Amino acid sequence: MGVASSSTSSLLSLPSHQHHSFLLSTTTFCSQRKTKLDSRSHFSFNPTSKNIPFESHLQILAHSPTTPLSICGFHWKVGTLNCGRLRKMETEVGVGANTLLDLPGVDQDLVDKIAFDALVWSSLHGLVVGDKTAQRSGKVPGVGMMHAPFSLLPMSFPENQFKMACEVAPIFNELVDRVSLDGKFLQDSLSRTKKVDVFTARLLDIHSKMLEINKKEDIRLGLHRSDYMLDEQTKLLLQIELNTISSSFPGLGSLVTELHRNLLIHYGEQLGLDSKKIPGNTAVKQFAEVLAKAWTEYNNPRAVVLVVAQPEERNMYDQLWLSSILKERHNVTTIRKTLAEIDTEGELLPDGTLLVGGQAVAVVYFRAGYTPIDYPSESEWRARLLMEQSSAVKCPSISYHLAGTKKIQQELAKPNVLERFLDNKEDIAKVRKCFAGLWSLDDSEIVSHAIEKPELYVMKPQREGGGNNIYGEDVRETLLRLRKEGSEENAAYILMQMIFPSVSPTFLMRDGICHKDHAISELGIYGAYLRNKDKVIMNEQCGYLMRTKVSSSKEGGVAAGFAVLDSIYLT
Amino acid sequence: MGVASSSTSSLLSLPSHQHHSFLLSTTTFCSQRKTKLDSRSHFSFNPTSKNIPFESHLQILAHSPTTPLSICGFHWKVGTLNCGRLRKMETEVGVGANTLLDLPGVDQDLVDKIAFDALVWSSLHGLVVGDKTAQRSGKVPGVGMMHAPFSLLPMSFPENQFKMACEVAPIFNELVDRVSLDGKFLQDSLSRTKKVDVFTARLLDIHSKMLEINKKEDIRLGLHRSDYMLDEQTKLLLQIELNTISSSFPGLGSLVTELHRNLLIHYGEQLGLDSKKIPGNTAVKQFAEVLAKAWTEYNNPRAVVLVVAQPEERNMYDQLWLSSILKERHNVTTIRKTLAEIDTEGELLPDGTLLVGGQAVAVVYFRAGYTPIDYPSESEWRARLLMEQSSAVKCPSISYHLAGTKKIQQELAKPNVLERFLDNKEDIAKVRKCFAGLWSLDDSEIVSHAIEKPELYVMKPQREGGGNNIYGEDVRETLLRLRKEGSEENAAYILMQMIFPSVSPTFLMRDGICHKDHAISELGIYGAYLRNKDKVIMNEQCGYLMRTKVSSSKEGGVAAGFAVLDSIYLT
Repeated sequence: MGVASSSTSSLLSLPSHQHHSFLLSTTTFCSQRKTKLDSRSHFSFNPTSKNIPFESHLQILAHSPTTPLSICGFHWKVGTLNCGRLRKMETEVGVGANTLLDLPGVDQDLVDKIAFDALVWSSLHGLVVGDKTAQRSGKVPGVGMMHAPFSLLPMSFPENQFKMACEVAPIFNELVDRVSLDGKFLQDSLSRTKKVDVFTARLLDIHSKMLEINKKEDIRLGLHRSDYMLDEQTKLLLQIELNTISSSFPGLGSLVTELHRNLLIHYGEQLGLDSKKIPGNTAVKQFAEVLAKAWTEYNNPRAVVLVVAQPEERNMYDQLWLSSILKERHNVTTIRKTLAEIDTEGELLPDGTLLVGGQAVAVVYFRAGYTPIDYPSESEWRARLLMEQSSAVKCPSISYHLAGTKKIQQELAKPNVLERFLDNKEDIAKVRKCFAGLWSLDDSEIVSHAIEKPELYVMKPQREGGGNNIYGEDVRETLLRLRKEGSEENAAYILMQMIFPSVSPTFLMRDGICHKDHAISELGIYGAYLRNKDKVIMNEQCGYLMRTKVSSSKEGGVAAGFAVLDSIYLT
Repeated sequence: MGVASSSTSSLLSLPSHQHHSFLLSTTTFCSQRKTKLDSRSHFSFNPTSKNIPFESHLQILAHSPTTPLSICGFHWKVGTLNCGRLRKMETEVGVGANTLLDLPGVDQDLVDKIAFDALVWSSLHGLVVGDKTAQRSGKVPGVGMMHAPFSLLPMSFPENQFKMACEVAPIFNELVDRVSLDGKFLQDSLSRTKKVDVFTARLLDIHSKMLEINKKEDIRLGLHRSDYMLDEQTKLLLQIELNTISSSFPGLGSLVTELHRNLLIHYGEQLGLDSKKIPGNTAVKQFAEVLAKAWTEYNNPRAVVLVVAQPEERNMYDQLWLSSILKERHNVTTIRKTLAEIDTEGELLPDGTLLVGGQAVAVVYFRAGYTPIDYPSESEWRARLLMEQSSAVKCPSISYHLAGTKKIQQELAKPNVLERFLDNKEDIAKVRKCFAGLWSLDDSEIVSHAIEKPELYVMKPQREGGGNNIYGEDVRETLLRLRKEGSEENAAYILMQMIFPSVSPTFLMRDGICHKDHAISELGIYGAYLRNKDKVIMNEQCGYLMRTKVSSSKEGGVAAGFAVLDSIYLT
């Protein structure tokens, strides 16, 4: 089963560019004992090679009853599955089918107890989101709350892969900073995208204006999250995307880690799990710390941190945790405003100071503005430009924002491009190792292969936040159409290698109910970067976000791409 | 305006016997400058005297614009109010009328900021209740949550009165224990009530059975809350009732104190308030501690604390905080069961051990079972009896439960009754000082006076939790009817002196909205008592609960008796 970013429906009411759902490849499953039978193709991949990097081979994905699937340190026996196409299997096995998960020594009673305790813990400790069925839940804190969706237990993850992902985070931080300084590279790389993507064009316009007036950002603040999936076959940790704007869930993600530790402290013995194998997660504390440091660098004690928020935001508590810690630990005040409000209330003093509602702004922290939906009128674009023109520290600046686009991700994956921005060869190798196959549609060889084997690719439009990725048969059709039309629209997409993560049985908590299902996980590693002119003040990996997702749609069951917050159990 | 317990509608979904709403006396308000004009009667009261203890006199309740009302250390200027009956005034002035509260230096903008921060704090720190508009909010934790209703700022309260209430708590703890041991006193005092109140009769039946089998409770655990109002005229702190079962809000009450401290840490300077003037509130920690100590005394490491809960409980988070702290701090496990579940799953071992769902129970903590509604069938009564027969520590035992009834409260207020249970004369004097006027309907002199001046009394039925108190003109009518019929029904009621607390303008947070209104407050002081045979293990005052309530109903606005959680600002 194939998975790639970035898209559609999720139960978390989030910036949709920051979570990913899943389409099915043409994989066939069969659990017949010891039968190697699978039409699924897999490939190993060498990202430095321009050659078509695939080799097909057979693979058993469904284990025999005697082959344990490891999750959370348990050995789960996978029961007998029906042969057939995955879609069929998923329908037949269904959510909560007891044959699916057979955990020795762990009965339903224990799962119920853990689930109850987990719901209680979430409610008492602010692991909450707005309930989309409650009218004002995205507008007013304290009303229409429900627990955030989370996995009941942490997902097992190889320690060496986790360490590698952490290790590379500061290098990505540095890379974004270097790329952001190369205005020509950003403009040139995105010049064709600009013609076919209005949103990117508007961002580039702001960027051009800043280049024209020779605007320098002395204090540069990055709060990134690099998202990965572990390819089951190659065991490579491959980057899905690098978020340089609105990296979500530092707050709730840190809490889920705490929740899981707490559960394992109480139930670890019964489960045969050790709470110490869950790595600490200080994402929210470190994000708050670097925001406070940026505020300090700006050096106006009366200034505030401006959180740019969407008019309706059911994930507000994630953001409010950050604001709360900023206040409690660092005595830095935040104000929350929408882009429209900033357009109305904002002004620029002659010295570059940004005032919003009469208050000087030290740091602009974007939790909106990453998707075209956030700019319904010229008002929002005026606000964005106003902030960019100001002396406030932008998180991110327009350059940082552009450096995180998919097109730039694809450009950086080209041979010899990383070398333009990074000096250390080891660093370059580490970063490159994370890159999945990424190609522009100018690459006719790849396009031909993708038409032939569309299940091995995902087409990603430049446009963020819309669930606009193209999978499977639609890849073939779109590529054929574009080839025929020979249009500029080519530039609106990149092609990315499809990643095949392993599928694990898991317990997903949603709406107060515990669901059993097959799921895949995506690891996000947060990075924080702050510099003032030549001085790097902070360049750190800080915490992580595990998200676990149902691996397919259900008929009448859990929605496709249903994602929950998770943490890591190191193996 | 007159107030007494115990009754009707509240926005907190609570054991209704534990909060109180307000009917209006015949008070007339007028704010005309320096005009002494009030038809309101007031009285001073000597509880040791059998004589009719009232003297009517005039009183100015509405202050002139130059007379400051003190709240939260501010001096609030009360704006011009319309002359007329209170009901009328309330309607005319309305919620959020800016003329009502005129706080120098505190503008709407500041109030909005504080309100927003308070909502955020509540959401992130588990100051939550179930939203009654959400279907499963009383059944499943983590769904349909909203912030608990609370007052935005703490209510000013005289330090000496607060200290006195704290000082007397251990004496009340001791008193309940002594009374509980006098089975004959309980049975005799309630013998007439038994004939007219089925609920009390059932409790007494269980009590009789325990007397018959000579059941001794060696380990006795009391978690009480004594509720008071400060009579404005006499400055006496008068007891409304003593809760010996299901004393609610140790959890959320402690949190509101934390919330208010937090707000004053950030906004105290602007408000001219000092966070240190809010007394600490360790109610939930101490309740957890004494429950853990009782568990230890029971001395079965595998046993649990059984929380007897209602089938639907929107105040579950208050209870869950206690369970959570029991687990985190004391490693004591709780299970939650309804009375019906206990009937189904409970059994008694020959040695007296109570098993519920196969688990031994060390302590039974009742957060249900105090109202007839909790016993819809014989099943629930069987469960209650089963638990009472067991060796588990009961919080409360049937004797403790009965010792907290209104009839016993009234009996204890009779001359020379306290002396039967307490030895220390100073203690007796302190307790007696808290007693409001309490009479049985056998007292024809009082009944005559109450028919004449019904606004000075409240009739309280023995029945708990129903909003069955009788006020005003209805007192007169009911007394006349009872006198005419000469029935046994007399015994179903006691008469209590109406208490007239001061009315303060305040900010009430409910449903994400900040309301300004006139309000009165009721102070609850928690007490924890644990003994094992002759050894008193704990006898402490532990924390407090302030509840603030809108002082009248509104047309189309806030419901009558709308109560919010509050804390204290010592003055």
